[in-house]
Amino acid sequence: MNIALAQLNYIIGDIEGNTTKILAEVDAAKAANVDLVVFSELAICGYPPKDLLDYPSFIERCELALDTIRIASNEIGVLVGSPSLSGLAKGKKLYNSAFFFSDQKLLAKVNKTLLPTYDIFDEYRYFETNNVFECVDFKGERIAVTICEDLWNLDNEKLYHVTPMDELIKQNPTVMINLSGSPYSYNHVEKRRTRMQLNAKTYSLPLFYVNQVGGNTDLLFDGGSMFINRLGDIVEECEFYNEDFKVIQWDSSTLYEDNHQEYYDYDIGLIHDALVMGVRDYFSKVGFKNAVLGSSGGIDSAVVHAIAAEALGAENVKAITMPSKYSSSGSVDDAQKLAQNLGSPFSIIPIKKAFDAFEETLADEFIGTEPNVTEENLQARSRGIILMAYSNKFGNMVLNTSNKSESAVGYSTLYGDMCGGLSVIGDLYKEQVYELARFINRYGEVIPYEIVNKEPSAELRPDQKDIDSLPPYPVLDKILFHYIEGKKGWQEIVDLNLEGADEILIRKIIRMVDRNEYKRFQAPPTLRISHKAFGFGRSMPIVARYNH
Amino acid sequence: MNIALAQLNYIIGDIEGNTTKILAEVDAAKAANVDLVVFSELAICGYPPKDLLDYPSFIERCELALDTIRIASNEIGVLVGSPSLSGLAKGKKLYNSAFFFSDQKLLAKVNKTLLPTYDIFDEYRYFETNNVFECVDFKGERIAVTICEDLWNLDNEKLYHVTPMDELIKQNPTVMINLSGSPYSYNHVEKRRTRMQLNAKTYSLPLFYVNQVGGNTDLLFDGGSMFINRLGDIVEECEFYNEDFKVIQWDSSTLYEDNHQEYYDYDIGLIHDALVMGVRDYFSKVGFKNAVLGSSGGIDSAVVHAIAAEALGAENVKAITMPSKYSSSGSVDDAQKLAQNLGSPFSIIPIKKAFDAFEETLADEFIGTEPNVTEENLQARSRGIILMAYSNKFGNMVLNTSNKSESAVGYSTLYGDMCGGLSVIGDLYKEQVYELARFINRYGEVIPYEIVNKEPSAELRPDQKDIDSLPPYPVLDKILFHYIEGKKGWQEIVDLNLEGADEILIRKIIRMVDRNEYKRFQAPPTLRISHKAFGFGRSMPIVARYNH
Repeated sequence: MNIALAQLNYIIGDIEGNTTKILAEVDAAKAANVDLVVFSELAICGYPPKDLLDYPSFIERCELALDTIRIASNEIGVLVGSPSLSGLAKGKKLYNSAFFFSDQKLLAKVNKTLLPTYDIFDEYRYFETNNVFECVDFKGERIAVTICEDLWNLDNEKLYHVTPMDELIKQNPTVMINLSGSPYSYNHVEKRRTRMQLNAKTYSLPLFYVNQVGGNTDLLFDGGSMFINRLGDIVEECEFYNEDFKVIQWDSSTLYEDNHQEYYDYDIGLIHDALVMGVRDYFSKVGFKNAVLGSSGGIDSAVVHAIAAEALGAENVKAITMPSKYSSSGSVDDAQKLAQNLGSPFSIIPIKKAFDAFEETLADEFIGTEPNVTEENLQARSRGIILMAYSNKFGNMVLNTSNKSESAVGYSTLYGDMCGGLSVIGDLYKEQVYELARFINRYGEVIPYEIVNKEPSAELRPDQKDIDSLPPYPVLDKILFHYIEGKKGWQEIVDLNLEGADEILIRKIIRMVDRNEYKRFQAPPTLRISHKAFGFGRSMPIVARYNH
Repeated sequence: MNIALAQLNYIIGDIEGNTTKILAEVDAAKAANVDLVVFSELAICGYPPKDLLDYPSFIERCELALDTIRIASNEIGVLVGSPSLSGLAKGKKLYNSAFFFSDQKLLAKVNKTLLPTYDIFDEYRYFETNNVFECVDFKGERIAVTICEDLWNLDNEKLYHVTPMDELIKQNPTVMINLSGSPYSYNHVEKRRTRMQLNAKTYSLPLFYVNQVGGNTDLLFDGGSMFINRLGDIVEECEFYNEDFKVIQWDSSTLYEDNHQEYYDYDIGLIHDALVMGVRDYFSKVGFKNAVLGSSGGIDSAVVHAIAAEALGAENVKAITMPSKYSSSGSVDDAQKLAQNLGSPFSIIPIKKAFDAFEETLADEFIGTEPNVTEENLQARSRGIILMAYSNKFGNMVLNTSNKSESAVGYSTLYGDMCGGLSVIGDLYKEQVYELARFINRYGEVIPYEIVNKEPSAELRPDQKDIDSLPPYPVLDKILFHYIEGKKGWQEIVDLNLEGADEILIRKIIRMVDRNEYKRFQAPPTLRISHKAFGFGRSMPIVARYNH
C-alpha cells in the first residue's frame, strides 16, 4: 500500500483555500499511485481555529468542504481532519474528527479521545470526548486511526484515564496512523519523536504520523511528519518548517530501515528557523510584505532585524534608529552598519523635538516634580509613536524587539518599546538572544561584532547599564527559567543554590515578574519557542497577590 | 440547624489574607450560634486562580491555610472551597474541592464533577473530574454538597453526561449546599436564580447557595447568595456587589416564605453597580487610589468619569482634556463642566506642540505623502503619551474609555485611545453607554446634557462625525450583537432583515470586527457585563481568514 504524508501549511479559517490545497495534494497523490493520502489534524480549518468553532456557519462551511473532498476520493483513500457535529443530546456540540473517505464514500469518522487542555491547548473548550474505538479496514489493512494527543497517554505520563491504542489494539490493527497538530518548542522535537517511537514499540506496529507546518500567530508548527517502523525506528521524516509530501511504498511484511535526518534537542538552528518561519507566515498570512523596527544598536533589535531580513527579504525591512541625548554615537553607527550588512533601508530620526515638546506641554502640570521614570518612558513612547506613524503611512508592520528576560521583569515601556504587531524574540531569554546572534554570525559578521560585544544598556539615562537595576543576565535568566518554565516557588529556587542568587534577589525578581503581568497582558503576540511562553500558554491573573 | 452564608470578597492568590477573612467569619458564626458556615468555591485562593494553580508551592500554601481553618472548626462546621491534590496516578494533579471541617476534623472532601470550560471558564485546564458521589452526614442532616457547575446540568441544557444531583439524590439527602464562583453578566442573574430554583424543585430539597462577591480583573462577581426552599422559592438572598453574612435558622420540617428582593434581567442599574464595583476592586486590590482619564467632552469618557468618581471618589479622578485644532470649543467646555459637576480635578493640556513636533520630526521621512489616518493616530497617540506620563509622574492609573462598538470595528487607535490599565465600558455597546448616561442622570444632571445630546465624533479631522464612516449606532450595535453575542454568520444576520442593514453593510461590519482582532489582543482588560465580552471569553485567532 502506498501511503502519502501530506504535510501542509494551512491558514486558520480559510476553509476554501485549505480545501483547494488539500484537493491539489489528492490529485498529486493519485498521480503518484497512492492508495491513501493522510492530512493533519483539523486540516480543513487550520489548527487551532479557537472560537471560530463556536460559529455554526463555520462548521457548515467545513461540512461543505468535506463533501468536495469526499467527491475527489474516487480511486483513492483520503484521511483528513475536521471539526464535526457530535449530534449528542448531552455534551459538547463538536468532535475533533478524522474523516476517512474512499471511493467517494465516508468509510469512517474517527473522533479524538484525549483533548489537551493545558498550556497553549484548550480543546475541551470546544470538543466532546470520544469513547468509541474502532479500527478502519482499508485495502486489506486494519488501520488504528488516532488524533494527536491520543498517542501521548502512555508510559509514566498519563494525564488521562483512557489510552486509545490500548482499546484499538484489541481489534488487531496492522498499522497506526496519527493526524497531528503539534507545535514546536525547543524541547519538543525530540520528545515528540521519542513518544511516537514508543508507541510503535509498545504496540509493535508501524506508525504514520502527519503534522501540519507553518506559523499561526504565536504557534510555530514545525512539521517533521514521520513513518516509524514497528521496532520504533524512524524510517522517513518530512522536512522541518516547510511543506512536504512523502509517498511511502509500504507493505506490512517489510520492516524498513532508518533513513531520517537527525535533529537534536535545543538546537539553536531550529530555534532560528522557527522564528524565520514565524515572521514569514505571520506577514504572508495577513497580507503584509514590509516590516519596520526600531534599531537601537543593541543586541535585541539586531537579532530581530536579521531574522526579519531572512524571513521577508532585507529590502523589505525598514530600520529606524531614534537617538536621544542619552544615545551613544556608537549606537547609531552600529545600527547603521547592521542595516548596511543586511542591505536594509535605514533612517535616523532623532526624538529630541518630540521629547522636548512633551516636556514643554507637561511643564505646568509637572511643576515642582523631579525627573523620574516618566522621562525615560517618554523617550520610549516617542519612539513607539514614530514607528507606528511610519507603519500607518507606508503599511509596514512594526516588529517588537523585546526579549523574554525584560518582558518577564517589566524592563520595558508599555506603548513604547512594547509596541508592535508581533514579538519575534519575546520567548528568548537574553542569553539565548546572544546565542542566536552568534548563530546568525556563524559564517561571518552579519550582526556587527560591536553589537554582540557591548554591555547591554537601555540608554534612557546618562551612562545607564542594565546591570544597574538588574542582576547579570546569566543569573537573571536562571532565576526566571526556574520560576516561569520550572514553576518553582521562591523557596525552591533558593534551595537550588544558584550562583549569584540569594533569597533577597530571588524574591525581588519573582515579585517583578508577578507585578508586570498587567504589562504583558497588553504585549503583542509572541513567537513561541519554549514550553512556557508568555501569552495564552501562561494565563495568570492580573489583579492578584502572589507568593511574596 | 443554623446555617450561615458567608459571601466574601477575596483577593486571588492572597491565601493568607483570604484565610484571615474566613477565620474572622468563622468566629462571627460561632458567636451567632451557627452550626455550619459555608464559604464559596475556591475561597482559600480566590476564583479564578488561573495558572497560579500550576505552582506546587501555591497548593502547599492552600493546604497550610486549610489546616488553620480545620483547627478553628471546634464546635462548628465549616465548608470551604480550595484546590486539592488529586493524588491520582492517571489524570490531572488537582481537584476543585469543598472541605467540610467539623470539630477540628476533616469530615469530608467533596470534589467538583462538572468543570466548565467555555467562555471565561477554563477549569479542565487544571482540574480532574470527580466521579465519586457521597452525601455528608452532619448533625442529623444528610447534606448533598456540590460545587457551582455541578448544579447546572439539568433540563434541556446538558453539557455533561453526568448530573451530580441525580447520583446524590439516591442517598436521600435532606438538604443541598452549593459552593459557587459565578460571575455577573446582565442576563445571568435571572438565569442563575432560575436554575437554582429548578434544582430545588427537581429534587424537592432546600438549597443553600453561596457565591463570592467582588471584581477580579475583568470578572465581576455579584454575590446574590441564596437560601431556596424545597418548592423553589427564594427565601433569602444576599446583597449584590457587597460582602454579606446571613444566618438562616433552618429546620428541614419548615418550608419558609419567599423573603428576597427581586432583581430583573438586563437592569441598567445592576450594570452600573457592577462597573462601579469593578473599578473599585481593580484599584483597591492592586493598591491604587487615583485614576486619570482623557476627558474628550464625548459620552464615553463622561460615563467612565462618572463611574470612576463613584468608585474612587471624584477627587481621586483626574480628568485631562487634550484639545487639538479639530476639537470644538464645546468639547473642552463640556469636559470642564462634567469635572465641575462631579468635583474632579481637571486640566487642559493641548496636544498642538507634540503633534507639530512629530510632524516636523517625520517631515523628511514623509516627503511626498498625503495626510491620512497617520495624522489622526498621531493625535490619539500624543494624548495617550500625555496620560501615561501623568500616570508615571503621579501614580494615577489610566482608565480606558473605549466602548464595545468601537472596539469591535477597530474605531480606535492602538497605543492611543486604546491605552489604559482597565477598560471600564469596553463591554457596553454605544447604545448602552447612552442608556448608562441617562441612568447616571436619573436624579438630575451629572453628565452635562450637552454631552448626552451631541452627535458622536472622534474630532480627528475637520467636522468629522462617527456616522461618516460607520452606520448609525442603533444599526451597528444590532449587527455587532448578532455577530458577537449571537455567533451568527453574515448570511444569518442578513436573514434577520434588520432595518438599515443590508448584506453589503453586514459583511463590511463583520470584516471590520475580524480584521481588528490584532488590536483587541493588545487592549486592556475589560470589565465584563455581557455573556460575550472581548478578552479571554472570546478567544479568536489573530492570523486567520474569516467568513468573508
